[in-house]
Amino acid sequence: MEQEFVTVASLKEWIEQKNIRKIRELFDEYHVVDVTELVQQLSLAEIIFLFKVVKRDVTAEVFTYLDQEKKEELIQAFSGPDIKIMLENIYSDDIVDFIEDMPANLTKKILASATESTRKEINLLLSFPENSAGSIMSTDFVELKVTDTVQQAINKIKRQGKMAETINTCYVIDEKRQLVGTIRLREFLFENREDKIQDIMATDVVSVVTDQDQEDVANVIKKYDITVVPVVNNENRLIGIITVDDIMDILEEEATEDIHKMAAVTPMEDSYLEASVWEIVKSRLPWLLILMISGSFTGAIISGYEVELMKIPALAGFIPMIMGTAGNAGSQASTMVIRGIAVDGLQTKDVFKVLRKELLIALTCSVVLFSVNFIRISVFPSELVAASNVILVALTVALSVVLALTIGKLLGGFLPLFVCALKLDPAAVAAPVITTLVDACSLFIYFQIAVFFLGV
Amino acid sequence: MEQEFVTVASLKEWIEQKNIRKIRELFDEYHVVDVTELVQQLSLAEIIFLFKVVKRDVTAEVFTYLDQEKKEELIQAFSGPDIKIMLENIYSDDIVDFIEDMPANLTKKILASATESTRKEINLLLSFPENSAGSIMSTDFVELKVTDTVQQAINKIKRQGKMAETINTCYVIDEKRQLVGTIRLREFLFENREDKIQDIMATDVVSVVTDQDQEDVANVIKKYDITVVPVVNNENRLIGIITVDDIMDILEEEATEDIHKMAAVTPMEDSYLEASVWEIVKSRLPWLLILMISGSFTGAIISGYEVELMKIPALAGFIPMIMGTAGNAGSQASTMVIRGIAVDGLQTKDVFKVLRKELLIALTCSVVLFSVNFIRISVFPSELVAASNVILVALTVALSVVLALTIGKLLGGFLPLFVCALKLDPAAVAAPVITTLVDACSLFIYFQIAVFFLGV
Repeated sequence: MEQEFVTVASLKEWIEQKNIRKIRELFDEYHVVDVTELVQQLSLAEIIFLFKVVKRDVTAEVFTYLDQEKKEELIQAFSGPDIKIMLENIYSDDIVDFIEDMPANLTKKILASATESTRKEINLLLSFPENSAGSIMSTDFVELKVTDTVQQAINKIKRQGKMAETINTCYVIDEKRQLVGTIRLREFLFENREDKIQDIMATDVVSVVTDQDQEDVANVIKKYDITVVPVVNNENRLIGIITVDDIMDILEEEATEDIHKMAAVTPMEDSYLEASVWEIVKSRLPWLLILMISGSFTGAIISGYEVELMKIPALAGFIPMIMGTAGNAGSQASTMVIRGIAVDGLQTKDVFKVLRKELLIALTCSVVLFSVNFIRISVFPSELVAASNVILVALTVALSVVLALTIGKLLGGFLPLFVCALKLDPAAVAAPVITTLVDACSLFIYFQIAVFFLGV
Repeated sequence: MEQEFVTVASLKEWIEQKNIRKIRELFDEYHVVDVTELVQQLSLAEIIFLFKVVKRDVTAEVFTYLDQEKKEELIQAFSGPDIKIMLENIYSDDIVDFIEDMPANLTKKILASATESTRKEINLLLSFPENSAGSIMSTDFVELKVTDTVQQAINKIKRQGKMAETINTCYVIDEKRQLVGTIRLREFLFENREDKIQDIMATDVVSVVTDQDQEDVANVIKKYDITVVPVVNNENRLIGIITVDDIMDILEEEATEDIHKMAAVTPMEDSYLEASVWEIVKSRLPWLLILMISGSFTGAIISGYEVELMKIPALAGFIPMIMGTAGNAGSQASTMVIRGIAVDGLQTKDVFKVLRKELLIALTCSVVLFSVNFIRISVFPSELVAASNVILVALTVALSVVLALTIGKLLGGFLPLFVCALKLDPAAVAAPVITTLVDACSLFIYFQIAVFFLGV
């Protein structure tokens, strides 16, 4: 957090001078996340030297914060025994994180170098479906027995605790290895060393099951304000833990995915700068094509009223404003409802509350939009409109705007909930469907009203 | 987590029967968050009875999870001494959370009932600007001195720890009360009781300053993978802590705000169902009006080419598709860049990388969109197009689509970064500006190309 931080140049100099004391001081003094930002900029040879002179547990942590590319270079360069020792100092969920993105030959090298028990853990975690609780959990936790005394538990924590991701909460299992309680580390400071764990543990255990979706896990952690949640299998046996730091990344990813979907972009794995052009094209092009069809459909409606447009050419000039307002009203409503479904528990059964609300909103907005348009068009008429027609054109446009707005709001409120009831993803499906429907409806209404009022 | 959970009806029955044993069992057996969901549905009189027979620290926790409305009813009903005892069992950040939204008379009642020290803490927290670290922090933490021994520290933790939000990390201050180190609770189990705290504490302390924005705080917690961050004032004196559960709520709020802004909705305090119609109208109507002006502007361009449209009426039918594709391409690019700025550290200096990428994406998409449109229009021509003009119309439309697409992508990539350089909020400003510019440019290009190829 200090203002003057070590530069990459000085670190490179220390490495060249083999100034081991300075290098170790750097790691003692600064946070490993900050130091890793420097290490990231070193050459492979420099990093390898660094890894040889700094403590194993520290370099293992540095490794987990490096870019995937640097990680692959290092795994390539390391010997089997080097990798083995490093793996012993990294949490299992972090190992799986970088293994998943590595080429097959490096994955093989890692698994071949790992100890039997680490290899088993890695394979277990890799066996769960993507985005499930099992795939993001860590197997590094402290497990106590109901029959343990406080003193026995403390001894276990001293043994197992070094490599546990957190020991602030420890988990208690019974003789069938089922999860039956939790105990906070602080209790061990306060309780009598002869007490039995089962007498002091909390039994209102919140847990998730291995095949639950990671979004569920995030919701559980948020709901109960906890920083770690135990993962059990279908027999309620404890097999892992998920910590809140991983959940924060997931919440952010999910929000990004929803935002991308609403803008008609298929979610991608990589960030914008990391993703290749081809990857981005694949995530955008299909939607451009789908929405182009929607555009052609709307165009066909305009072509269908060709004759009317020829008679009163001024009508064409209002098309963008009417379609635009309908589309904006629709996306305002659908976005709020889609986000409400994602974070505030809005459900299909709320559909009437939503429609009622959107109708009232539409009516209120309509008063303003009708007045603005009617006044603007009748006071400053286009030269293209015959004087005798000005009021009728103003009425046609103003009425069309508010009807299009109302349809946009109602469809925007209704469709995400409907799509949700079909067990589809509202963020992905609702936007293109709403655009197509709202555009088509608003144009149809406009031309029908024009035919009615202007007799074209 | 059990399948069969107690129903509200049985809880109401127990209260009527004054079955205190059953009620206390309920709170022992289930998680307070789940029990509160039941309590939320009770009448005021029932809740008051419940609060009398259940332990103070448990009811205080129940209180923090109740709806704001129920909280206000209870504060109204409680006597001063009741409130005082309850406040002593609630973390200061949670107290401030519900005080901020209460009517002035209830806030007064709460402050009048609080002890001197609680009142001071509340007033301190209320004095920080909204969304600053100071306004969301809690003052309930454990503070140790560098000169303490492990044994002295444990005694302090036993005294202060009961009401601390977390004691998993304790903070160490020097004689000037400046924050100089942290120590994890687990060390106390492992270290010798005669050791000095200053010899075993970690000195690479990550902290935030009271007036830093809450988004900064979230970024610090994410970057360093920590579950609690200390808050210091400008003299580096420790005055509070912020825990990760509050940060999760903030991350979600910020994502919702960005999503709403991108859909042209001004962010609101309340969730969709809680917000009044009037509140939602206020957050949407201004944008509808602004975007309507943009639509009128586009309409003016169409009216300007009235003569050309009269000559080849089929041209009008392609307007929605060309404008739509340009708009979608623009929002795809701008959304990815805006989100990249928010979460992946995309900066104004990356503008050339972004433009290069968007140009390549546009070129790749163009190959497909050009072919699809050219083939579709020349193979299935509209009846409105004269046979001699078919190829020229197909060429005009296909070329316009890809040029509009390219402009959309480039503007969508450029504008958010430009807005960011002006220190404005890209999510709020970029969307309407991009819509207006992209719509206008794409139409202008379309009509110019039509004039060129078709000589209209």
